[in-house]
Formats: sequence, C-alpha cells, structure tokens
Amino acid sequence: MDIAILFGGSSYEHEISIVSAITVKKVLKNFNLSFIFCDANRDFYLIDSKDMKSNYFANGDYKKAKELTLIKNGFASKGFFGLKRVDLGVILNLIHGRDGEDGKIASLLEFNKLDYISPRVDASVLSYNKLYTKLYAKSVGVDFVPYRVLNSTDNRDIELEYPVIIKPVRLGSSIGVSIVKEHSELDYALDVAFEFDNQVIIEPFIDGVLEYNQAGCKTDKFELSIIEEPNKEEFLDFDKKYLDFSRDGKVEDANIDRELRDNIQDSFKRVYGTLFEGAIIRCDFFVVNGKVLLNEINPIPGSMANYLFKDFSSMVERLSKNLPKEQDIKINYQYINSIQSAKGGKA
Amino acid sequence: MDIAILFGGSSYEHEISIVSAITVKKVLKNFNLSFIFCDANRDFYLIDSKDMKSNYFANGDYKKAKELTLIKNGFASKGFFGLKRVDLGVILNLIHGRDGEDGKIASLLEFNKLDYISPRVDASVLSYNKLYTKLYAKSVGVDFVPYRVLNSTDNRDIELEYPVIIKPVRLGSSIGVSIVKEHSELDYALDVAFEFDNQVIIEPFIDGVLEYNQAGCKTDKFELSIIEEPNKEEFLDFDKKYLDFSRDGKVEDANIDRELRDNIQDSFKRVYGTLFEGAIIRCDFFVVNGKVLLNEINPIPGSMANYLFKDFSSMVERLSKNLPKEQDIKINYQYINSIQSAKGGKA
Repeated sequence: MDIAILFGGSSYEHEISIVSAITVKKVLKNFNLSFIFCDANRDFYLIDSKDMKSNYFANGDYKKAKELTLIKNGFASKGFFGLKRVDLGVILNLIHGRDGEDGKIASLLEFNKLDYISPRVDASVLSYNKLYTKLYAKSVGVDFVPYRVLNSTDNRDIELEYPVIIKPVRLGSSIGVSIVKEHSELDYALDVAFEFDNQVIIEPFIDGVLEYNQAGCKTDKFELSIIEEPNKEEFLDFDKKYLDFSRDGKVEDANIDRELRDNIQDSFKRVYGTLFEGAIIRCDFFVVNGKVLLNEINPIPGSMANYLFKDFSSMVERLSKNLPKEQDIKINYQYINSIQSAKGGKA
Repeated sequence: MDIAILFGGSSYEHEISIVSAITVKKVLKNFNLSFIFCDANRDFYLIDSKDMKSNYFANGDYKKAKELTLIKNGFASKGFFGLKRVDLGVILNLIHGRDGEDGKIASLLEFNKLDYISPRVDASVLSYNKLYTKLYAKSVGVDFVPYRVLNSTDNRDIELEYPVIIKPVRLGSSIGVSIVKEHSELDYALDVAFEFDNQVIIEPFIDGVLEYNQAGCKTDKFELSIIEEPNKEEFLDFDKKYLDFSRDGKVEDANIDRELRDNIQDSFKRVYGTLFEGAIIRCDFFVVNGKVLLNEINPIPGSMANYLFKDFSSMVERLSKNLPKEQDIKINYQYINSIQSAKGGKA
C-alpha cells in the first residue's frame, strides 16, 4: 500500500514534525512510503527515503530534491517539460502546529480531492484552538478543565487562585506555556504567551494531577489504543516534547479500574464523534475527584501516537480504506437557466 | 486599485455566487477589477469583464477563457511555455457556501500568501456551521435563538413545541430548510434536511419576529452599515434568495430607537471581534421580548451586502489596506542542530 508522509510546514513545530516523520518512517516500514517535505516557505519537495535524516533538512540539502506542486487529485513534479504527475497514494498529514493542525493542509488536500489521513478543516479549527476545544467539548457533553480567557488588549488586573497555567490559545507542544505560582510572576508569563498569540487561556494548575492519554480513530468501527499514564513532570518543555515526538517503543497500559477506563473511552468517543473521522487523534485527560476532564485534543499527535497501538500499521491500512468522502454536488445551472428563460434568453 | 473577484465554487450556492459577482462588478466599477471563476470541478478561469453574464457560465463558454492556477503570492496563467504570473491585486472571496465559506478558499489563499478579503479559516468554520455559531456566540456573550441538535442517526421520537424551523447545520441560502407546523410534518422535513447534512439544528419558529440585519467590517476602526429591517416573508426560499443576491439599490435605515440600535451594534461588534478581521460580514438578528438574539452570521453575504453601506467602494478600499497579516515564523533548526551536536553530528 502507498502512503505519503507530509511533514514540515510553516510552523513553530516544523522541527518536531521532521522528527515525527523520521519516527513514523520506521514504524510504517511495511508500506511503500513516500516523503513530502513542506519547507518554511511552503514549497513542497519529494524526499528520497535514504535522506530522511534531520540534518538533511537543517542544512538545506533538501533543496536539491525534486520540487513538487499540488494539483488536482495528487502531486506533480516540476520539470523542463512542465508538470509530471507522481502517484504517491494516501497522504498522511504529519505537519504539527500551524498549516497542519489549523485546517490549511486539510483544505488544500480536500479542495484538490486527494485521499488523506488528517483531521478535516472543521476538526482542525476546533482542536487547534484551546478555547474552541472547550466550547466543542461542552457541546458533546465532555467535561473539561475550567478556564478563563484573556485577550492581549484586556486589563491584566485580574483575580486568580494560584498556581495557574497560562497557554496561548493556538499553539501546541507547550510553546509559550508557563506555570505561574504567584501574582508577581503573572505579568512575565502573559508577555511570553502573548508573543505567540493575541489570546491566552488560563487554567488552574493542579500539581500531581492524574493524567491519562487515549488515542484512537474510526475505521469501520472505533479503534482505541491502550491508555497511557504519561510520565509525571511538572510539564514537558519543548526539548522534552521534542524527544517525545520520536517515540516508537511500546508503553504499558495504565493500571486503572474498569469504570475509569470506560469513562475515558466514552469521553474519547464523544470527542471523536463524526468530527474527527479520517484522523488518528490523541486526547489527554485529567482525572480530578473521580471526574474525567478533557485537557487537550492532539489532532495530529507526535509520531501519530504509534507507540500506544498494538498494531499501528494495520490500523493505518484500515483507516486508509475508510476515509470520509466529500459530498458530490451537481451543478446544473437550473436557476440561471430558469431566470434566463423568464427573461427571454437575455443575460 | 486592483481587486480580483473570486466566485463560483463546488457549492450548492455556485449559481448565486455568479449572481453576486455580477452585482459586485456593477458596484465596484471604480476599481480595476478582474474576475476569477472557480468552476464545479474547482478549476480556475480568468474571465473577461465583458463575459460577466450568467449565461456564459451556464452554457460552459467559460471553458474558452484562460485557465489559472494558484501559485505562491498570486495566480498564474497556463500557457505553452509554462506558468505566467498574472497580477490581479487583492482577492475578494465571493464564493458562497462550500469552498468559500467553509474555510477552504481562505486556507488556499493564506497558504499561498495572497492578500484577500474573506473570513479567515477559523472564522469560516465557526460561522459556516450553525451549531458552532451558537457556541461561539455564547463565548463572546451574545444571545442567540435557542436550539437543539439532531444527528441523522439519532432517534426521531422527540418532543417539540411547534412550529419549529429545521436547518442543516452547514448550508446557507435556506437550502434544505423547512418550517414544521405540526408533528406529522416532522419526518419529511428531517428527510429533506438530512439530504444535505448529517446534522440538523431545530429552533422555535417565531412567526412575525422582529428581524434586523447589520453588516460591517473592521478597517482601522469598525465600519458599520445601516440596519435593515428585511422584508417579511415566512422565509426566503431559494428563488427569492437568488434574486436577493443581485441587490444593489440602497435601502432605508430601520426606524428603531437608540437603545435597540446600540444593542444591535454592540452584538455585531462582539461577534466580529478579532475573529472576522479581513471580512465584510452581515449578522441577522431577531428581537424577542426586547432581547437581541443572533440568528445567523453571513460570513460572505450576498453581493457583500453592498446595498447596506453608504460608500461601499471606499470601505472596500480601506479594508484592502487593513488586512490581517500572518505571523512570521522563523525556522532556524536550533533544536535539530543542538541534538546533532549532542550526538556528535551523526543524524
């Protein structure tokens, strides 16, 4: 089966997307893989499998690779005699952050009628923005961590119960995120977050909170991963997250009782719903006083959360055969024609 | 000033987009206009001004026009010697419904770094879907018509207080919308709506409700239109809406008191916020028991609601000079390089 891994992007998470792609290459070795790199300028390149090393991108060598352009139903390579279609199979969107997770790549692929594994545009917008994630969670009956929103133009003279965690609404991988333990640290943390976004979300920081990650997708049925209890760290900074994106070893299923497992799985399915069809996502949950709270949705998790699945390869294959199809809209110019005939054929 | 009107699209509203474009052509006659048609297959054509007649599209003559392709920073025409850049100025997205209002066109233009007048991808997704519009309205403190949601797979055995209005969550221009006066009509109305979407929204139908439309945008400041009290009809069916999209005459400012006007304008500004920057939108409000309720957001209103503005042309010019700019993200491969040096330079 042919799969093309699309990675890179004009994103703060450009580099971890490269790490993710290198990892997924190892994990999906049974497929006939291609690699499409989207560079910082958003030009596409077809990368040879042997060149899938982080250095190749960091030192600019990728510019010697064949340049690609997105056309109807696929990609084409640019050559002396114009465009030449290259058949790459199903696209696996592995661009983290902007472009990949904000709906742009999904839009490009959908508009050009490619088959692709990725959250669709709606799913991207609702999960890329942490505020919209809360609104969506509420609409599907899933509890979430309480929050307040602050705009960069708002008065900062606010009453908070410390410690709190401050996050730009639109970024992943802990970029711009701070834990604020007392009021005197608030201003600096807000400055940091507002460097990345004009809106931030403020949540209570719960030290030592029980945390569980559940990944999954819908093929002809729901396919859920094991539940991971991630390593306890105050929170993962960018360097640690970076390493986190290269995970390919298996992890242990969390040692939790049946009821909690059911609650986590039920919350995951509610979040996934029909909105995330076509995507493999990971939801991070907190458990507070026995209640399962959605912390965040990772619509394109690091290395596709491959390490949480028993047989990631087979699942990707099943998903590739169960991708959502765009509704066919027939345009027959019935209204224009009827108006034309009413007007006696004059435009 | 150069403006390119982009219209058509793979959308149930393809034909009214053509009507809209012909109307806006008349209204923006002081500009140096170009016309980019997106056909049902999503191929782009550069249309000569003299050919901007509905017949030209309905009978397929447009296929003789120059084909365009979207490239970095603009459009290019396809010729014997490859692509040739054509300089068309700011793009005015006038594709109603799918493609234009669902975030796909915004994504294409943003990804390729064009200047464009249109809701951005977030704004599109939140306003194209009537359920998400409610969630968003709530988050910005704007009241809305109460509702319930039904999925196509849900049990239809529901208690409702009739009459109700049933709408597919994702379409505009009254497509698939029915007023249901009693329980016996419910099943058919749901069948109709579910032909267009797998989720519908059910609202109380308030006969003779006070309705007011407010359009506007943000240039260097908010620019609001007059407030229109639209013609009372039970609701506009597709044919009447069609004619509605060709409006270019001026209308009267609604005869309402200062307080109501302030409330409507305040609600509009809350909805517009920062989310809709770059777009000219129209919000349709109901007034029930003195309370202003958001009925819907038209992120790309018919003929851009030109007829509501005193000087539409000048406003479009100001908006063109105040479009949101994408944040610049520098990618310096700092993390890959630091990992490389820790590993002694081996990839």
